[in-house]
Amino acid sequence: MSEEAVVALAAVTVLGVLQQAYFSLQVIYARRKYSVSPPATAGPPEFERIFRAQANCSEYFPIFIAVLWTSGVFFSQGLSSVCGLLYLYGRLQYFHGYSESAQRRLAPLYFSARVLWVLVGFSLLGVFFSFCRVYLKVDLLRGLGSA
Amino acid sequence: MSEEAVVALAAVTVLGVLQQAYFSLQVIYARRKYSVSPPATAGPPEFERIFRAQANCSEYFPIFIAVLWTSGVFFSQGLSSVCGLLYLYGRLQYFHGYSESAQRRLAPLYFSARVLWVLVGFSLLGVFFSFCRVYLKVDLLRGLGSA
Amino acid sequence: MSEEAVVALAAVTVLGVLQQAYFSLQVIYARRKYSVSPPATAGPPEFERIFRAQANCSEYFPIFIAVLWTSGVFFSQGLSSVCGLLYLYGRLQYFHGYSESAQRRLAPLYFSARVLWVLVGFSLLGVFFSFCRVYLKVDLLRGLGSA
Ligand SMILES: N[C@@H](CCC(=O)N[C@@H](CS)C(=O)NCC(=O)O)C(=O)O
Ligand SMILES: N[C@@H](CCC(=O)N[C@@H](CS)C(=O)NCC(=O)O)C(=O)O
Ligand SMILES: N[C@@H](CCC(=O)N[C@@H](CS)C(=O)NCC(=O)O)C(=O)O
Repeated sequence: MSEEAVVALAAVTVLGVLQQAYFSLQVIYARRKYSVSPPATAGPPEFERIFRAQANCSEYFPIFIAVLWTSGVFFSQGLSSVCGLLYLYGRLQYFHGYSESAQRRLAPLYFSARVLWVLVGFSLLGVFFSFCRVYLKVDLLRGLGSA
Repeated sequence: MSEEAVVALAAVTVLGVLQQAYFSLQVIYARRKYSVSPPATAGPPEFERIFRAQANCSEYFPIFIAVLWTSGVFFSQGLSSVCGLLYLYGRLQYFHGYSESAQRRLAPLYFSARVLWVLVGFSLLGVFFSFCRVYLKVDLLRGLGSA
Repeated sequence: MSEEAVVALAAVTVLGVLQQAYFSLQVIYARRKYSVSPPATAGPPEFERIFRAQANCSEYFPIFIAVLWTSGVFFSQGLSSVCGLLYLYGRLQYFHGYSESAQRRLAPLYFSARVLWVLVGFSLLGVFFSFCRVYLKVDLLRGLGSA
């Protein structure tokens, strides 16, 4: 795997890490503001929404990274990186929406879920084509091209 | 690293992502069924078991992916992929068992933990052999083969 | 990517997985000791601190792995692996500190956060240099060397 083939995926990954750091800091500030000292996680609804927004984004982070790379390596680095940026944008909206009200988390949640499904679809396609090349010695993409 | 050497690991990874998506959807349905609106996470025991089953699987997902790939790249792609499928099967049983009763989560938990330990063992062996090749210029596997 | 270029990163990854397994076992022992049966997560403060310590370390685990590898592949395997070991050391102190009192989690938290920022910095530098090489055909590192 050449550097060229993955550098954009690495850039999106680091951006995702920076976003997670930003969400964590917001929880730390919210803990101070609403006086919710660890190990407590219950508090006023304002705090709990921020706490859950970060927890939810953290839960999806490894899933996102897994499909970003599978899709980027086996399907297309360019398309995957664009989807990666859209996903991170959606998650930022989700975090801020959820912080305001539970209702406002929904639209960005659906958006980011849709982007994640696109990445899953790309991954499935990429892995399927790769399986055909490696185990069946059939290159479907080249077949399509010459047809 | 050639495509051939990792395509089965990528396939198991995408399957794992689909499983995580399935678990998340079950939590969303359970939130509706038992009327537990975010940011709340407490509710009737039926809900809490489904909620915790998904949380527990999410917590182990990055650990699973990390050993799947380390073991697959440094030890054996074939053996790691088979263990990966067994692990995902165990986690499906865990999720459904835990949804029914806390007691029924135990047998599949022990099963999936054992599979995870096997992957950890493979990873340790693979990384150890690789260290010997790279830093000590000793190829233990070839040594074994010619002995 | 050659085996040589990533074997130390793989070793730190497996060590991180072993640490996560150790933290999980501590939660299981604490559940028995303080009689907090799943799906419950609330209990005496002693239990909740151990529970949250493990949850917090789990939340950061995928972030840690992501920057460890980005930094190790695009910047320097040696420096990243050393930071990786320091991070894991910090997390062990965090876990034991938090188990004793919420106050004692703070010093190791700051330490491990600082190490994580160093890895983020290395990743940013590495990805930036790589971008320049790949898309602008400028090799900043070589430029520096010959200046
Ligand atoms: N999930 C974390 C996100 C932010 C974080 O990492 N906080 C640090 C400093 S307050 C911590 O030690 N949290 C304790 C915990 O997660 O239980 C939280 O709830 O606090
Ligand atoms: N852990 C999630 C899993 C499912 C999920 O992603 N749910 C979406 C739609 S209900 C969400 O925004 N959950 C809010 C939250 O996690 O606090 C949950 O508890 O709901
Ligand atoms: N977060 C886990 C860490 C340890 C673990 O994996 N425990 C197993 C055996 S007690 C489990 O099934 N936990 C149930 C749960 O996480 O809800 C916990 O809270 O228990």
